[in-house]
Amino acid sequence: MGETRLDLSRIQAARQVIDPVFLDTPLYRCEALEPGLGCSVSIKLETANPVRSFKGRGTEVVASVLADNGVRAAVCASAGNLGQALAWSGRGRRLDVTVVASRHATVAKLDRIRALGARLELVDGDHEQARERAAEIARHEGIRLVEDSLDIETCTGAATIGLELVRTPPSFDAVLIALGGGAMATGVGHVVKELAPGVEVICVQPLGAPAMTRSWHERRVVTTGPTNTIADGVAGRRPIPEVLGDLLLVADDAVLVREESIIAGMRMLLEHAGLVVEPSAALGIAAVLEDRDRFAGRHVVTIICGGNVDPAAYHGWVHA
Amino acid sequence: MGETRLDLSRIQAARQVIDPVFLDTPLYRCEALEPGLGCSVSIKLETANPVRSFKGRGTEVVASVLADNGVRAAVCASAGNLGQALAWSGRGRRLDVTVVASRHATVAKLDRIRALGARLELVDGDHEQARERAAEIARHEGIRLVEDSLDIETCTGAATIGLELVRTPPSFDAVLIALGGGAMATGVGHVVKELAPGVEVICVQPLGAPAMTRSWHERRVVTTGPTNTIADGVAGRRPIPEVLGDLLLVADDAVLVREESIIAGMRMLLEHAGLVVEPSAALGIAAVLEDRDRFAGRHVVTIICGGNVDPAAYHGWVHA
Repeated sequence: MGETRLDLSRIQAARQVIDPVFLDTPLYRCEALEPGLGCSVSIKLETANPVRSFKGRGTEVVASVLADNGVRAAVCASAGNLGQALAWSGRGRRLDVTVVASRHATVAKLDRIRALGARLELVDGDHEQARERAAEIARHEGIRLVEDSLDIETCTGAATIGLELVRTPPSFDAVLIALGGGAMATGVGHVVKELAPGVEVICVQPLGAPAMTRSWHERRVVTTGPTNTIADGVAGRRPIPEVLGDLLLVADDAVLVREESIIAGMRMLLEHAGLVVEPSAALGIAAVLEDRDRFAGRHVVTIICGGNVDPAAYHGWVHA
Repeated sequence: MGETRLDLSRIQAARQVIDPVFLDTPLYRCEALEPGLGCSVSIKLETANPVRSFKGRGTEVVASVLADNGVRAAVCASAGNLGQALAWSGRGRRLDVTVVASRHATVAKLDRIRALGARLELVDGDHEQARERAAEIARHEGIRLVEDSLDIETCTGAATIGLELVRTPPSFDAVLIALGGGAMATGVGHVVKELAPGVEVICVQPLGAPAMTRSWHERRVVTTGPTNTIADGVAGRRPIPEVLGDLLLVADDAVLVREESIIAGMRMLLEHAGLVVEPSAALGIAAVLEDRDRFAGRHVVTIICGGNVDPAAYHGWVHA
């Protein structure tokens, strides 16, 4: 077992460079959800900010380090939320941001990236192709490549959510975290295990994009073929070894959920909590729906990590 | 001109008795709304809490005063949000809460009042009938009547929103506040005028429920016949003289908006901000839509004061 790349004091210090608009987000019990789930449920809401996802925490740390080092341009691959957040953080620091995304990415996310003044390049294929193209641009143009989850700043920023979860002795027994590249899961997991070790850290991924979960279970990087999920924000195929290493140190479990559970979770969050969430943000609720016995009578907190959806697609999912 | 009933030091002190879950709510610029509105727009979001409206701020102050005075039971009339919030605040302080509401109130609000353990009594007729019945119950049972906007604690609690708006020197030029009974408008308006007097305080009410706005313009209480608006939270007919007096001291303007503008505002908040809001919470956006020239190039902040809707009704409004 290796050492973690995460560091609590660095995470605490990160709060100083993150715009307060991304910090101290709502954390509240949502009783209206509970009859349908059979357990107590709290919400950590990461959508009420200028980029409608938790990614601003990480890109604020990234952009502040780049600015401190005199870097003037950066490129990242993104399913949409990282790109939007990096565009936002870069704009405030006069950083030229290029975002590479799949042509099939959520249109609302791509529109916001453009509106925030970033250069957007679309690639055929999926997120892994976007990652390759971003690396190519970085090499070719000699600009800085920002890699989600691999760049420790993205994990450190996301980890500040964990500080807010355990600021007071937590009343919850488990935290349910969407698992994609792993920045949020490793970051939040690290803080929770350091400061509230009794709280179970459960990562949740779609059955249709199981690479990181399979890797966690097998304790080695497992890549997969094409993903098949509406949860675009977590649809990777090639886990990053360093991130898996960090995840193995903090996750108590990693579970996979079906698409219909993700949709049911989105619908419950809309009808009983009044929250419009993207599929990735409903993974925690989906995990409870698929294993009620495990959570019965317990208190879970789930991080509502993003709310960027295409209105038509969202409508089709929740009102079908 | 009388003296205000509001007091800044009492408002500041109120933060100590309000559960933190209601305080320090998100305040953020929402650029995605701006192309459609022609001005800069910030959101103060009061829906991400256990009762999905700003009313918890006031009921926390009310309930703490009642508990301090050994009061064991209270009754209020409510369109639904005050009742839900008083039920929540009362439950934590072993206070027996009775809520009187119109039979035509939003079902989701009534369900939550019951779920929170309050006694719910429904009356035929509108909110004014509910107010009469609540007063009757208070007299008959000898329990404490809580009157929204008249009881200064409800205004003091709501006014804490104002403290958060002006905590840092505000970048906005105007604050748009839904006007119903007047607790929020007088409370927030008082703080803004005390601490950031250059910011315009604009109250917004539906054309179909114009009593308080007409009263403000005529500088005397004007009552009206039956209201006709989907904005149930602000649909009163009989302004309270003391509250009008406070409002006259702080509001720079009071405007009326059409139902179609309220619906357009709800739709914009859903599509461009991902927010499910009740009609009252869209009044500020509606005011911009109806008078773009007035706000062109300026920066407004609007308080998203509640998000309790019946899913079917909401769907009918925004997707019609």
